[in-house]
Amino acid sequence: MSSTHQFAAIVSVGDELVLGQTLDTNARWLAQRLTDAGLVTLEHVTVPDDLDAQVQAFARLAASADVIVCSGGLGPTSDDLTRQVLARAMGDALVEDPIALAQVEAFYTARGRTISAMNRVQAMRPASGSTIPNHNGTAPGLQGLIRTPAGVAGPERRCDVFCLPGPPREMFPMFEQHVLPRFRLTAGRTVRTRVLHTFGLAESDLAQRLGTLMDRDALLKGQPMVGTTASGGVVSVRLRYEGSATPEHASSLLDDCERQVRDGAGVYLFGTGNDTLASVVLSLLRQASQNLGTVESCTGGLLSASLTDIPGSSACFGGGLITYSNALKTQLVGVPEQQLGPGGPGAVSSETARAMAVGGLRTLGTDHAIAITGIAGPDGAMPNKPVGLVWIARASTTSRSNTGNPDVDCRPFMMTGDRASVREWAAKTALAMLWQHLAGVPAMKLLRQV
Amino acid sequence: MSSTHQFAAIVSVGDELVLGQTLDTNARWLAQRLTDAGLVTLEHVTVPDDLDAQVQAFARLAASADVIVCSGGLGPTSDDLTRQVLARAMGDALVEDPIALAQVEAFYTARGRTISAMNRVQAMRPASGSTIPNHNGTAPGLQGLIRTPAGVAGPERRCDVFCLPGPPREMFPMFEQHVLPRFRLTAGRTVRTRVLHTFGLAESDLAQRLGTLMDRDALLKGQPMVGTTASGGVVSVRLRYEGSATPEHASSLLDDCERQVRDGAGVYLFGTGNDTLASVVLSLLRQASQNLGTVESCTGGLLSASLTDIPGSSACFGGGLITYSNALKTQLVGVPEQQLGPGGPGAVSSETARAMAVGGLRTLGTDHAIAITGIAGPDGAMPNKPVGLVWIARASTTSRSNTGNPDVDCRPFMMTGDRASVREWAAKTALAMLWQHLAGVPAMKLLRQV
Repeated sequence: MSSTHQFAAIVSVGDELVLGQTLDTNARWLAQRLTDAGLVTLEHVTVPDDLDAQVQAFARLAASADVIVCSGGLGPTSDDLTRQVLARAMGDALVEDPIALAQVEAFYTARGRTISAMNRVQAMRPASGSTIPNHNGTAPGLQGLIRTPAGVAGPERRCDVFCLPGPPREMFPMFEQHVLPRFRLTAGRTVRTRVLHTFGLAESDLAQRLGTLMDRDALLKGQPMVGTTASGGVVSVRLRYEGSATPEHASSLLDDCERQVRDGAGVYLFGTGNDTLASVVLSLLRQASQNLGTVESCTGGLLSASLTDIPGSSACFGGGLITYSNALKTQLVGVPEQQLGPGGPGAVSSETARAMAVGGLRTLGTDHAIAITGIAGPDGAMPNKPVGLVWIARASTTSRSNTGNPDVDCRPFMMTGDRASVREWAAKTALAMLWQHLAGVPAMKLLRQV
Repeated sequence: MSSTHQFAAIVSVGDELVLGQTLDTNARWLAQRLTDAGLVTLEHVTVPDDLDAQVQAFARLAASADVIVCSGGLGPTSDDLTRQVLARAMGDALVEDPIALAQVEAFYTARGRTISAMNRVQAMRPASGSTIPNHNGTAPGLQGLIRTPAGVAGPERRCDVFCLPGPPREMFPMFEQHVLPRFRLTAGRTVRTRVLHTFGLAESDLAQRLGTLMDRDALLKGQPMVGTTASGGVVSVRLRYEGSATPEHASSLLDDCERQVRDGAGVYLFGTGNDTLASVVLSLLRQASQNLGTVESCTGGLLSASLTDIPGSSACFGGGLITYSNALKTQLVGVPEQQLGPGGPGAVSSETARAMAVGGLRTLGTDHAIAITGIAGPDGAMPNKPVGLVWIARASTTSRSNTGNPDVDCRPFMMTGDRASVREWAAKTALAMLWQHLAGVPAMKLLRQV
């Protein structure tokens, strides 16, 4: 191990994780952030709510890692042991932290409740440690130093330990606001990362377009590493420089690399950094002073929820109609009854998707409407209409007065995977169709379009 | 550790897992199967494609576990090291297994391909080990025995190691068909688990109601262990018996324990096992042959998405209206314009929530409608209306013909946390209000109700 590296280990705590009752997503999230921050993750460990097991894990990992990030076990109940574990691993006693106590009390007071003896426990910290503020919950985090004495393995080691609560909405902001800035990074080492997002290409197709950019020995050649990760249809390209270049030179290396990635990804590239398809669509709508409505069948609100998840979406999102039943498809957006009845093309068809989008424009009074109708499964397949078949239509007014015929783009897709996967891809694909229109790029065929 | 326990450890192998590029779902799946099979999982470990790291993990875990199940690292490429790792941890050489070689060859022949030297590697196994057939891929699994010599920690230990490929569609059937039957289970050891779900109480309040049931030394006393975990407002109570009782006696101990948990949790307990608020509400609606509609403002589709996420929801979910703009609140559900204008109670008010729910019943033609209007933040706060204020109304028809006045329950809440948290709690709380009505329990005050 080179001394210029900083090594990290990730610990997840909880019986529910070890027993498999809950899926651990924190470890993956932390691993991504640690990698972005230039640390090399050695290992993830998941241990039960057991004092000895957790103390042993801390001691073992502290002997090889420079940083341990632990999530879970900071709640107020007797099976939450991380406070005691950290104190024992540090050889410290637990003391009450007056600032943390004031924060915990304030959290309860703001909600009209009084702090119980049990909740007071959450303000305890190891004597030589410190607390990490939690703006989204009661449990403060903890920071401490575990020293491994000099021995056969080498000189004394010092490992920074950060203990955070398990719930992601508490843990994520605490890590980014308060843990990242506390890392003691190796001097003279520059780490820079960037991320670009694409939609509509398979990960392997994108890799072929990127070619030698993705060589695994890029860092050895002083170049940024390029890797891809796929999540729910979005394939992200991560650029990471780590080496001895000055920050300015590292940025210019990333600029060059980003240019090549953009050339390779072409019109499938829709955003960077924290952009999502929904955020990019909303910001294009805002720039154009236009708004959007949705008409959802098989996605049942998922598309609208992804848009309204974004602060300020009310400026560009007018509203939505979840026409789950056929009766509501007719009543709310005027899909002709005979179209849905025997002998007609049916609820999952080009005709119905178009009628939903055009009817949505009218009912919701928006500049654009996107409509989704499909078979999410596991039941509902029909002859010639398998589970995964989804029709998506975009309709847009062609004049301010909305007098002309709307412009309509209607496409069929065969989504794969389970119900959740079909719904998630359908919602994202609908956004990608609108994005192509708003961004003025060619309406390229998207992955899974048939 | 009592010698009557069988202990297991789970190892996941792969750089893509350690770096966070891929989410590990194998460890959770294996943990569930191991628990069901009566083993106690001690730990999950995720290690990179690194020979030393993986050998050290095997050796360390073999000193305390009776069984190690490892997934990943069995592919044909040079970064797949699990074969070498197992051989080294066993002190064995690698030999070619003729039966495995024939299976690998057959796999390629059936696909019209010939086996390469690289693929031949997959037929190697430790000399004293055996292979595990893979019916869905090329890489056979491996079984071997790691012996930890007698020492200060006790007598010689023998640990069975099972190495399986990473892809779930190969690993899952291999584990169930070929690994489970090879376990040498301790006679007379019984493990039973249950989980109960509550909503509307803080985790610490629930813990106080459960009192000594949650003592950490329950197992030592021959009683089930009781623990709580909170996720998005749902606080789950996990019961776990492990000991020498007969399966029948263990079940009756869990029955007793469950009865006490139910007494403590009272009307806040809404489900067990895989139940969610949405699934429980849908199943109560199905039993009553009734259906539901939604009228969402600040949750913007999230409530509907959580309902339509469940297969078969179309039987009881009619549809929804996302009345995000004030204009649509008036147009679609008849909220009086003056109510939303200057001097009126406004969009976030008891009056508007009621009007949305009652209007939703009418527009959607359902038996029940739930309406949510609030300030999800971070912007949008007004004098006397802070971020987090949410009004939720349930309206239900009181006759089949829907001629009488609907029955309405309308309540204010102060949700906490960020936008995502306010929205998630609002959607779950709305379901809890409907659940109280459908289940016929008293309309108890829910957490964050003001």
